[in-house]
Amino acid sequence: MNLNKLKKTLKRKQKQVDKYLARCLPSGKTFPQPIYQAMRYSLLAGGKRFRPVLVLLTGQMLGAKASDLMPAAAALEMIHTYSLIHDDLPVMDNDDLRRGKPTNHKVFGEAMAVLAGDALLTMSFKLIADKVKNKKLAARLVSEISGAAGAAGMVGGQVLDMFAESRKKGAREKLGLLSRAKYLKTTHQLKTAAMITASVRSGALVAGARPGQLRKLTVYGRSLGLAFQIMDDLLDLKGSKRQLGKTPRKDARAGKLTYPSLWGTEQSFRQVQQLVKTAKRALISFGPRAGSLRDLADYGLQRGN
Amino acid sequence: MNLNKLKKTLKRKQKQVDKYLARCLPSGKTFPQPIYQAMRYSLLAGGKRFRPVLVLLTGQMLGAKASDLMPAAAALEMIHTYSLIHDDLPVMDNDDLRRGKPTNHKVFGEAMAVLAGDALLTMSFKLIADKVKNKKLAARLVSEISGAAGAAGMVGGQVLDMFAESRKKGAREKLGLLSRAKYLKTTHQLKTAAMITASVRSGALVAGARPGQLRKLTVYGRSLGLAFQIMDDLLDLKGSKRQLGKTPRKDARAGKLTYPSLWGTEQSFRQVQQLVKTAKRALISFGPRAGSLRDLADYGLQRGN
Repeated sequence: MNLNKLKKTLKRKQKQVDKYLARCLPSGKTFPQPIYQAMRYSLLAGGKRFRPVLVLLTGQMLGAKASDLMPAAAALEMIHTYSLIHDDLPVMDNDDLRRGKPTNHKVFGEAMAVLAGDALLTMSFKLIADKVKNKKLAARLVSEISGAAGAAGMVGGQVLDMFAESRKKGAREKLGLLSRAKYLKTTHQLKTAAMITASVRSGALVAGARPGQLRKLTVYGRSLGLAFQIMDDLLDLKGSKRQLGKTPRKDARAGKLTYPSLWGTEQSFRQVQQLVKTAKRALISFGPRAGSLRDLADYGLQRGN
Repeated sequence: MNLNKLKKTLKRKQKQVDKYLARCLPSGKTFPQPIYQAMRYSLLAGGKRFRPVLVLLTGQMLGAKASDLMPAAAALEMIHTYSLIHDDLPVMDNDDLRRGKPTNHKVFGEAMAVLAGDALLTMSFKLIADKVKNKKLAARLVSEISGAAGAAGMVGGQVLDMFAESRKKGAREKLGLLSRAKYLKTTHQLKTAAMITASVRSGALVAGARPGQLRKLTVYGRSLGLAFQIMDDLLDLKGSKRQLGKTPRKDARAGKLTYPSLWGTEQSFRQVQQLVKTAKRALISFGPRAGSLRDLADYGLQRGN
């Protein structure tokens, strides 16, 4: 793989996304000002823009234009950002640092942070409904993304995550997930992989992908999403506050179930390798044009080195 | 007006809505169970179903079928319920009682209450995208409702409400709302009237209303919404815990700006009368078929007696 080329591509797309996001969101001088200030603070705080970049890479591979992909891309980032704001609240994960800056509630207060998250989530669907020109596609994207973001997806994963601290072991039985391995995999699939899969699928839907293509890209998204979450768990163990932009080793200290805590680092890394292999295999029929998506999967492994 | 007939109509429609809502939401045995239990607890706790009933009354007046109106009606109730759950959180209004039952966070904990609200909001848009058959209409409804629910609507109103306690007087200047009267009216317009207007408009949109009809119904919705909020402020002053289903006189005790605290009860009631008159005048061209909407506006005044 050509790591330098991929990094340049990612950087370029990330900047495009940043620019679009800044334009989407009313300025901090728009009435009622405090809510837009709080929304902008977190949404425009940088970050990898991994989900929107996936929308762009997948969609452009299949011939869609960046301008047609942007509404879905931005919506997914808004939803990701709202979930971070709510996740960082004292009643949830209680974090002070995010993307290298004080968390939203540290700056604007807890009430405003709740509302800023709510408003970003709400705005994400308005953006799609308004800006996607083909309204049948708009409805399909709202369905796809809300499905991945809701109780059967990301929010459901956060619920599982809440019960995943070892002192709440008994909760597993109530949820019908007897083994810790199954519990953990399901948590990651819902909490992270669902939205990453939706990003890949949204790009494909905008490009008018055929059902067979969509199926393969779904396999790619699921494997990539799970691989990235396990890699995040691994990086969390050895990263510094500055590198991560958030407080490291919080999960470990809270006694939360993670891949490294359950399988050890070596075994966890082997699972990531296996998932990356599965992800890349799903891309075979797309040929050379899937180069960036393939490199992106490999990049997941590099991150750990 | 025929109050008995109206009450029967409202009761019948409320039951239809309750039934539809119970079917929309996966059972509490669906994985991951705790989130669906928390969502069901608040969504199926009863309540007047005022917003969905408005969708039905308006849409049916213009010839739409109840089955076509239900997705938008249910979505609006989900959004209303999520806003109550988040509003009741200790970091927001800190309330123990809602719809006559302990608030969501009292039963499920604060973290789950945040997530249950998030999930209801997310599901509302999925419901419209999936269940409204005409996808152009679906996109229009998502746009309409998310606009009313977001930073420029309901959430924006909650932000204003947060700053409305008298000890935060200075905040008014920052927001560019110099007079207390203007501040209060804008708060109510955003916090309550926007969603009530969206309910009326959604019913009209499903029925394929002409632009002129939509304009008149918008005037009706705005006047009705503001009238109901002022009436709520008035009822809050004299209602009991049992009647209201929530803790009475909280706003007054918190020193919050309300219509009665600013204008006195008599003057506030006169404003409600004026708004009801405006609402009914907007219905003139619809003739006798607007009977229920007209009675509903009058009912607002009766509630206070």
